[in-house]
Amino acid sequence: MRQYKRDLSYSYSLGIFTTIELLSTRPKQVENVYVHSEYKEVERLQALCAENSIEIKQDDKIFRRLSQKENSYVLGIFSKYACKLSNTKPHVVLINPSDMGNLGTIIRTLAGLYITNLAIITPAADYWNPKTIRASMGALFHLEIETFSSFAEYRKQYESHTIYPFMLDGEILLNLENCPKDERYSLVFGNEASGLDDSFRREGTSIQLPQSGITDSYNLAVSTGIGAFIFAKTNGQI
Amino acid sequence: MRQYKRDLSYSYSLGIFTTIELLSTRPKQVENVYVHSEYKEVERLQALCAENSIEIKQDDKIFRRLSQKENSYVLGIFSKYACKLSNTKPHVVLINPSDMGNLGTIIRTLAGLYITNLAIITPAADYWNPKTIRASMGALFHLEIETFSSFAEYRKQYESHTIYPFMLDGEILLNLENCPKDERYSLVFGNEASGLDDSFRREGTSIQLPQSGITDSYNLAVSTGIGAFIFAKTNGQI
Repeated sequence: MRQYKRDLSYSYSLGIFTTIELLSTRPKQVENVYVHSEYKEVERLQALCAENSIEIKQDDKIFRRLSQKENSYVLGIFSKYACKLSNTKPHVVLINPSDMGNLGTIIRTLAGLYITNLAIITPAADYWNPKTIRASMGALFHLEIETFSSFAEYRKQYESHTIYPFMLDGEILLNLENCPKDERYSLVFGNEASGLDDSFRREGTSIQLPQSGITDSYNLAVSTGIGAFIFAKTNGQI
Repeated sequence: MRQYKRDLSYSYSLGIFTTIELLSTRPKQVENVYVHSEYKEVERLQALCAENSIEIKQDDKIFRRLSQKENSYVLGIFSKYACKLSNTKPHVVLINPSDMGNLGTIIRTLAGLYITNLAIITPAADYWNPKTIRASMGALFHLEIETFSSFAEYRKQYESHTIYPFMLDGEILLNLENCPKDERYSLVFGNEASGLDDSFRREGTSIQLPQSGITDSYNLAVSTGIGAFIFAKTNGQI
């Protein structure tokens, strides 16, 4: 078992909580579950492995090799898998997100809001990287994530969603009362450093988050959190 | 000039943007501004230094020593300073925040929401660390930040604020319409791993953020962002 690299066909969950999320949502993808000799039996993990006929192997060496800085005693190896987005449910689209921590945090937020369809436009941070999975607290396995090489490619496949690009000078200054009511919204967020370019204004109704003027933007995971929360609350996802 | 350590009486801003924030908000604290030989003159920086009679020194060695992984060409050394919170403005209180990235992101969000008074209950991540300052994008210099060794100590000094602890089972399930109207609110958020213990229920009206049940919580910076946004919007900060 080699250290994670982007071009491998598998990745792994680190930690008991994340591995339980993996086993309970994507059991068919799981290849192996390893535990450290200091692992104390956790009923839920044992039950999920038994249910899916997965043998729990003890192996301390694999933790030294793979567990990075974390003190993890459970590790689940899984095969990467492909997803398709739903044609009828809300989407979030991230254009070239570059930070694995932000990406994992956003995935965790979206799962919390019941927005379970995420499009990622590449190049982008690797969502299969154990760091992203860890930052998502395992929420990643609950989402359908599909990648596209351009926004146009995404748009060609999902043409009936209404596009809401989040821009610093968007036309709707979002507050708690004026959020669009829409069953098939697609919230689009730009890269951490560069945001969205002007061409996105033509894709739909652009949205601006109010802010004081002290700062010129929020962190990407915070913008996505605030924007998606208001859309999800207005349109009944949560 | 030594690498940053918590017990030093000074810290530094890295990068042009962060250093401009430092110079424009806390000029009297600035001891030195250094630039790298590859620095191209930025008018605003030059003007701020001239205004405050600060000489700009060129020194590549200091960047190798202090700039961590970042490619920064500007660095501002400043003396740490003490702040007092306002008795009349809204507060956010963070109990033992442990992650410098989260802390910096929260500071950036609060500045964006015009909530400029932050209490930190120690032990906590070091808000003077250049990593926190960088994550805040320099917004840290706009805030009044005061530390306390316990919540009780904070409460003794600021007794007229209404306390709103954010808890997973808080009594108000916050939506876009039911946010308390209050001029002197104090939003309290627990540590990343442990949240707030039950005793906080007695401190005020506890608040819960709705979520799907897929996840059991949001990332701390995201919770603070959503909660503070709704309070700031409802009560006219932004």
